[in-house]
Amino acid sequence: MNYIENRTFEELQVGDEASVERTLTDRDIRLFAALTGDVNPLHVDKEFAQDWIFQKIIAHGMWGGSLISSVLGTQLPGPGTIYLSQNLEFRNPIAAGEKVRTTVRVAEKHDEGHRLVVDCECRKANGEIAITGQARVIAPTKKVRRPRVGSSSVELHKAGARF
Amino acid sequence: MNYIENRTFEELQVGDEASVERTLTDRDIRLFAALTGDVNPLHVDKEFAQDWIFQKIIAHGMWGGSLISSVLGTQLPGPGTIYLSQNLEFRNPIAAGEKVRTTVRVAEKHDEGHRLVVDCECRKANGEIAITGQARVIAPTKKVRRPRVGSSSVELHKAGARF
Repeated sequence: MNYIENRTFEELQVGDEASVERTLTDRDIRLFAALTGDVNPLHVDKEFAQDWIFQKIIAHGMWGGSLISSVLGTQLPGPGTIYLSQNLEFRNPIAAGEKVRTTVRVAEKHDEGHRLVVDCECRKANGEIAITGQARVIAPTKKVRRPRVGSSSVELHKAGARF
Repeated sequence: MNYIENRTFEELQVGDEASVERTLTDRDIRLFAALTGDVNPLHVDKEFAQDWIFQKIIAHGMWGGSLISSVLGTQLPGPGTIYLSQNLEFRNPIAAGEKVRTTVRVAEKHDEGHRLVVDCECRKANGEIAITGQARVIAPTKKVRRPRVGSSSVELHKAGARF
């Protein structure tokens, strides 16, 4: 059984970091569009996207934002974290097929209210920064270790046929 | 045929707004977890969530962030918008079954670079604010009107059986 475990306020120090690596697929972009309703043609309309400045389909900026949130919620600090705020600067777009490493690093630790300021970035395999940002969270004080739940596979259907 | 159309920098004025209403389902939460890898037990583990301060499964904060991005990318300003940054303050959690109205409103318009500052909020049907934030975007200068693409249905599978 695979477990998910947090790092408590007491355990965490300034400079501690965690990251996840993921390669974005066409299917991820279509799924994100279907789920959030964000059918901006930059993300779903190949013909439009090719005429645009990036010249190809690009991912939703919030896809990167969601990867940041995912590292905060599952690894550092992980389960029990209360997410107070997130700033995101979208610096370069992410296209399908690109590998992205999302890293979060404790920048400040405040005993009052067990608050952390966490620096966040999504960096592409070619070295370009896609997103930078900063999160404020309340870190958990109680250790949590739970069986990992929710890694369902997802399928997309369109007009009765699978993508 | 359903179309998606932008509002250009020239057409937009301070105070202009757009919004979308959506009721969050259990399935949306599971899909968001599967897609982003954010399997924080607050979002997917009923037993854990019931013991937590909110006492039920709550949505990922970035689900609300994605609704904001969706309104910016499809309605105001819509297709052709370049997303520069987004700040999000998570004020109250959203639970399954709750209806959320996401509104964006032009707060500042700067001729230089066709930049807008846009106030954003997700408000629940019970009147509580779930998220507030501010986006900075470059608004399109060219009118875009495209057939709407990408409203695929999405299905979730787990261990071979549908949820």
